[in-house]
Amino acid sequence: MTAEILDGKAFGAKIRARVADHVARLVADHDLRPGLAVVLVGEDPASQVYVRNKGIATKEAGMKSVEHKLPADTTEADLYALIDELNADPTIHGILVQFPVPDQLSERDIVARIDPAKDVDGLSVTNAGLLASGQRAMVSCTPLGCLMLLRETLGSLSGKDAVVIGRSNLVGKPMAQLLLRDSCTVTIAHSRTADIAETVRRADIVVAAVGRPRMVPGDWIKPGACVIDVGINRIPAPEKGEGKTRLVGDVDFDSAREVAGQITPVPGGVGPLTIACLLANTVTAACRINGLDEPEGLTA
Amino acid sequence: MTAEILDGKAFGAKIRARVADHVARLVADHDLRPGLAVVLVGEDPASQVYVRNKGIATKEAGMKSVEHKLPADTTEADLYALIDELNADPTIHGILVQFPVPDQLSERDIVARIDPAKDVDGLSVTNAGLLASGQRAMVSCTPLGCLMLLRETLGSLSGKDAVVIGRSNLVGKPMAQLLLRDSCTVTIAHSRTADIAETVRRADIVVAAVGRPRMVPGDWIKPGACVIDVGINRIPAPEKGEGKTRLVGDVDFDSAREVAGQITPVPGGVGPLTIACLLANTVTAACRINGLDEPEGLTA
Repeated sequence: MTAEILDGKAFGAKIRARVADHVARLVADHDLRPGLAVVLVGEDPASQVYVRNKGIATKEAGMKSVEHKLPADTTEADLYALIDELNADPTIHGILVQFPVPDQLSERDIVARIDPAKDVDGLSVTNAGLLASGQRAMVSCTPLGCLMLLRETLGSLSGKDAVVIGRSNLVGKPMAQLLLRDSCTVTIAHSRTADIAETVRRADIVVAAVGRPRMVPGDWIKPGACVIDVGINRIPAPEKGEGKTRLVGDVDFDSAREVAGQITPVPGGVGPLTIACLLANTVTAACRINGLDEPEGLTA
Repeated sequence: MTAEILDGKAFGAKIRARVADHVARLVADHDLRPGLAVVLVGEDPASQVYVRNKGIATKEAGMKSVEHKLPADTTEADLYALIDELNADPTIHGILVQFPVPDQLSERDIVARIDPAKDVDGLSVTNAGLLASGQRAMVSCTPLGCLMLLRETLGSLSGKDAVVIGRSNLVGKPMAQLLLRDSCTVTIAHSRTADIAETVRRADIVVAAVGRPRMVPGDWIKPGACVIDVGINRIPAPEKGEGKTRLVGDVDFDSAREVAGQITPVPGGVGPLTIACLLANTVTAACRINGLDEPEGLTA
């Protein structure tokens, strides 16, 4: 058996098309154009690329895109003044401060300053609490993307045994909450798990979000299981030349694809879903802030 | 094998003694007497008993106890004025509004009005979010009591397989978070779980919090497992006379005690821990609000 390879790039494009469709309807029916503001502090080259890509994708979906670039020595007071202004701006529905930020700023405090209704990264304590208590939350983009991909691939998730490997606040824990909300039987495994091979081997759905290159071998996978690999790990690739590297996931793709029913590759699996879900969250935020129905197919 | 019966009454008394000890030290060393305010709206007879018992236990632990009894037709504005006053009162560290409340009031909105630092019932979205993201939270009393009892009985919980049956916001979900924080491998099972018998049978720790009388039979229990029964269900007891009832848990005690290593009875197991943990939370809140160290043995 060889697994179906889940094409994250294609599914990401599908989500973005859904987003564009919703945006067009919001503009036509409600004169409402969702707006996303991205704030970049400093000049980290990788962050500059991410911010630019987010801006391009936002505009391609027909949304308003605003970028604020602040100098590396920006004070907390200046950043908060900008966040407060964006919180109050009725044309902005999503606010994202690109991390990491310079040392004089606190990521936790920044997140707390953003209106939870506009926290499209889903990082705030309020949104974690809303998710944990089964209320409408803004959900962190990576786990939301994994959930959408699982629904797209498997249909209803109700009653399936799901194992989430990793218990980070950013992925593992919200992923477990989302799978539980969709009525999976959810197990959270981690570095202290006594028999992790056996634990993973029970699962119909495996989400690996640990950050350890190829730690999940094929013989941990139940035949036919759906494997979602969130890990993005850079490892040496001497076969490509001296000093070269390549990206691998937390799952050993070559052995796992022989056993799994479906599997995401790295790169090209979960990665492309993250920006798509950022756009989806911005549409969701715009709908909620304006008292409109939840946008179908874009929420948890 | 016959299980050790875990005596919740004795362990509750032990927690209350720890509380009294901490209170005495806070008064002696910091001139700080923790204070708990309980608000009762209306005259529900059962609620009156609960409120009276909480007041007695609070005073027995050496703490300040305040009771506010409001008429059944109290408006939201009047209740919120009282909550705001208690939020601002430096002699009050815990605020509890006894539920249920009359129909003109919203439990969710009441909880949201209480300062999260004084939310000793741990019911607010903020506290759910802090717990879910691994920060210092006020934790709901029943799951906190279960955690303390498990630590007392088993020592370190790290690496143990734990199954929580039930996914309520009040017990199941925070219980899973607490077990995960103590490094258990946590599975949340529920009505949609495909093979619940097999799922429960894997667990070193079983926490049953469903509210279905004796739904967990002994042959679901792994030999030697520690079984915590949160259910309190009233069933007919014709053997005691016509119209008589008795209390049973979610676990079938008679069959489970033949298999388990330890088991809580119903009544007399988890029940007595709840008030003890309310007192513990009030001490914890008093310490945090005043910037003092966490009270040892009283927190999650």
